[in-house]
Amino acid sequence: MDVYQSIRTRVAVRSFTPDPVPGPVIKKILRAGRWAPSRRNTQPWHFIVIRDRDTLAQLASMTSGGPYIANAPLAIAIVMENARMPQFDAGRLIENMLLVAWSEGIGTCFVGGFDHEKVKELLGIPQDMDFVTVMPYGYPAEAAKSGGKRRKPLSDITHVERFGEKWADI
Amino acid sequence: MDVYQSIRTRVAVRSFTPDPVPGPVIKKILRAGRWAPSRRNTQPWHFIVIRDRDTLAQLASMTSGGPYIANAPLAIAIVMENARMPQFDAGRLIENMLLVAWSEGIGTCFVGGFDHEKVKELLGIPQDMDFVTVMPYGYPAEAAKSGGKRRKPLSDITHVERFGEKWADI
Repeated sequence: MDVYQSIRTRVAVRSFTPDPVPGPVIKKILRAGRWAPSRRNTQPWHFIVIRDRDTLAQLASMTSGGPYIANAPLAIAIVMENARMPQFDAGRLIENMLLVAWSEGIGTCFVGGFDHEKVKELLGIPQDMDFVTVMPYGYPAEAAKSGGKRRKPLSDITHVERFGEKWADI
Repeated sequence: MDVYQSIRTRVAVRSFTPDPVPGPVIKKILRAGRWAPSRRNTQPWHFIVIRDRDTLAQLASMTSGGPYIANAPLAIAIVMENARMPQFDAGRLIENMLLVAWSEGIGTCFVGGFDHEKVKELLGIPQDMDFVTVMPYGYPAEAAKSGGKRRKPLSDITHVERFGEKWADI
């Protein structure tokens, strides 16, 4: 799928079919994250691939934001090690992952609100590492309504040379 | 360009030809950022499109990390407004932008180390907003050596079910 098309059509998916995500597709998603840029190529990230139903259910109970993880066939946790900008780097690699997932027909959604300490204990994440999120992955249970994705007009958020100067023909 | 191919082949570009980035390409890059996800679709971002040579030179003098901005035909500043996770959201929209830029033959590179207060004054960014970065954009001056992009083996950064458990066939 064309990169702009993946960006344009991708939507958050919170309801999944029970079909497993094939191993080669999981690896392609992980590779997409792995190719992300990072400061001085330090690659300060780890992935935890989770398909165990009990673990998925426990993770769902550890967040106010994503109970639907319990019903996903797969989730991938993102852990940062010695990152100077863990949130920024994580945002970049997660975006790579979800765009490639989408191009393979797989949906996901960012989940926040985790009890980080509980998740780190459950997944055995070393205390000195940063847990970022666990995101569910799977085939969307409903047809994506990407045509309805809404954003502010570009003219409202674009400035030229200085903040507040509008781009006349945008 | 296929989304995985853009992710796989993209490299940091710090040296640009003097050719301007056409307006329609700039707008496509901005739209790619605009389609990024954000918490409850709050879209907490602003873009500042900078082509003025004097402004580019001044920006270059305000960072230890990216003097090459002075020689780029274009730079785009990212500003976050009322974002709960400004770095994470910025990482996601910047990744969208650079992948689409790359698919259009345009290179860029993350620049850190800015004197944020000086940049906010120069660009007129309101004090209560978060300045993230200014990144240069342009046609690469040298052929990209994307074949040489190095990353840790997937087996070193991938765990299954729990941190430390290796994926046998990865």
